Amino acid sequence: MPRYRLTLEYDGGPFVGWQRQKNGPSVQAALEAAIVAFSGEAAETVAAGRTDAGVHALGQVVHVDLARDWPSDTVRDAINHHLKPAPIAVVEAALAPADFHARFSATERRYRYRIVNRRAPLALDAGRAWHVPVPLDAAAMAEAALVLIGRHDFSTFRASECQAKSPIKTLDAFEVARRDEEIVFALRARSFLHHQVRNMVGTLKLVGEGKWTKDDVAAALAARDRSKGGMTAPAEGLTLVGVSYAPRSAGAAPAES
Amino acid sequence: MPRYRLTLEYDGGPFVGWQRQKNGPSVQAALEAAIVAFSGEAAETVAAGRTDAGVHALGQVVHVDLARDWPSDTVRDAINHHLKPAPIAVVEAALAPADFHARFSATERRYRYRIVNRRAPLALDAGRAWHVPVPLDAAAMAEAALVLIGRHDFSTFRASECQAKSPIKTLDAFEVARRDEEIVFALRARSFLHHQVRNMVGTLKLVGEGKWTKDDVAAALAARDRSKGGMTAPAEGLTLVGVSYAPRSAGAAPAES
Repeated sequence: MPRYRLTLEYDGGPFVGWQRQKNGPSVQAALEAAIVAFSGEAAETVAAGRTDAGVHALGQVVHVDLARDWPSDTVRDAINHHLKPAPIAVVEAALAPADFHARFSATERRYRYRIVNRRAPLALDAGRAWHVPVPLDAAAMAEAALVLIGRHDFSTFRASECQAKSPIKTLDAFEVARRDEEIVFALRARSFLHHQVRNMVGTLKLVGEGKWTKDDVAAALAARDRSKGGMTAPAEGLTLVGVSYAPRSAGAAPAES
Repeated sequence: MPRYRLTLEYDGGPFVGWQRQKNGPSVQAALEAAIVAFSGEAAETVAAGRTDAGVHALGQVVHVDLARDWPSDTVRDAINHHLKPAPIAVVEAALAPADFHARFSATERRYRYRIVNRRAPLALDAGRAWHVPVPLDAAAMAEAALVLIGRHDFSTFRASECQAKSPIKTLDAFEVARRDEEIVFALRARSFLHHQVRNMVGTLKLVGEGKWTKDDVAAALAARDRSKGGMTAPAEGLTLVGVSYAPRSAGAAPAES
């Protein structure tokens, strides 16, 4: 049966997260319901990143196997039709090789975190950014972020419920830039621990406030102890921007069903 | 009594527009209710731009007279406190000269219109942009926009309910730029007719689709007849970005009450 790769955009606000749960609506359940509605097939979807409640996506990647060989544009349009009015959209659908796995084949995940740093509360950005009313020194945060780049034991920034086998991860990029009243964090890694981005951003906020130095961040990292890190930044500032996969060798064709 | 100048950000989605109306919640009514709640004063507010239902603002400017001489930061914070949970925020409050008038003193208004031009429906941008699924030629739209710049009789782009005395306006800038799947229109003028931006964008869409040329836009403008223009683009793509005022002479101090 053909495997499809779907690229999803969603507003995480109304959902308990990507993963199907008993306590509320999930992105996965909404997507699978739309797939059933159009194809009649109760197919299981697998996502690159199991985003938490309130976390947004611009480029979440999902794979799903369907019995029938639909044109991929039909898959995209039909799922979108049945997703309405949920704030989820299939931006792209494509046939994928049979061994493509949205989660395990991913070679890079890119996240963005947004702080709006001003006294006034958020209006247009409500639910889309972390509102921090006290002035933050973005340059100091950018310098402290460099301490976290590279291969480390990230236990200090790992949620207790994290299911990863190892706390050792390689953080490839962690850029911090201010643009007017907005501070944007751009992160890249093959994979992240649960809450790693939010816990790192919450820790850098201490640097931005002048309460911590970058040496304090280094000491917290070295402690490998969640209690030595800063707070978990709120979910609404986080967006899964995109996921990368290794390019297929030139001759590789999509797998037959 | 001191006059205050307030700069407002709001999500126009839940409102019938800036102006107080009988048929639903307005930004003006919410703002005036918050002013009463903090100051006990039933003050009337005047805005630079009377935005329509669904139109957003990043930098709407309002003036209001209060009997008591509050510190302007108190005015900002207290109104924001009482505005919650409405998606309206006072970004800045400042004492203004007694002759400052948010509407009549304005020398420039800046609007932005956003189209998301892709097949998939909007998720994160729902209510914040016009979703146009057919491919648009942004370069052709940008060229046709140049036809509209300058001093013209804009009757073709004027809503029938427009209250302006004259249909003659000077459009100072109308830039059209594509960035990936987004097409952003940036407009500047001392003032605009009612629905002028949305009617011009709806007309440029015909050019983007290849149905009209820039000569057709010129002919529509010359016709001075609303029935010769394109559709009114939906409100949700429009944002009042900012309003400018003539700088005060160096020695001018805020007026006494």
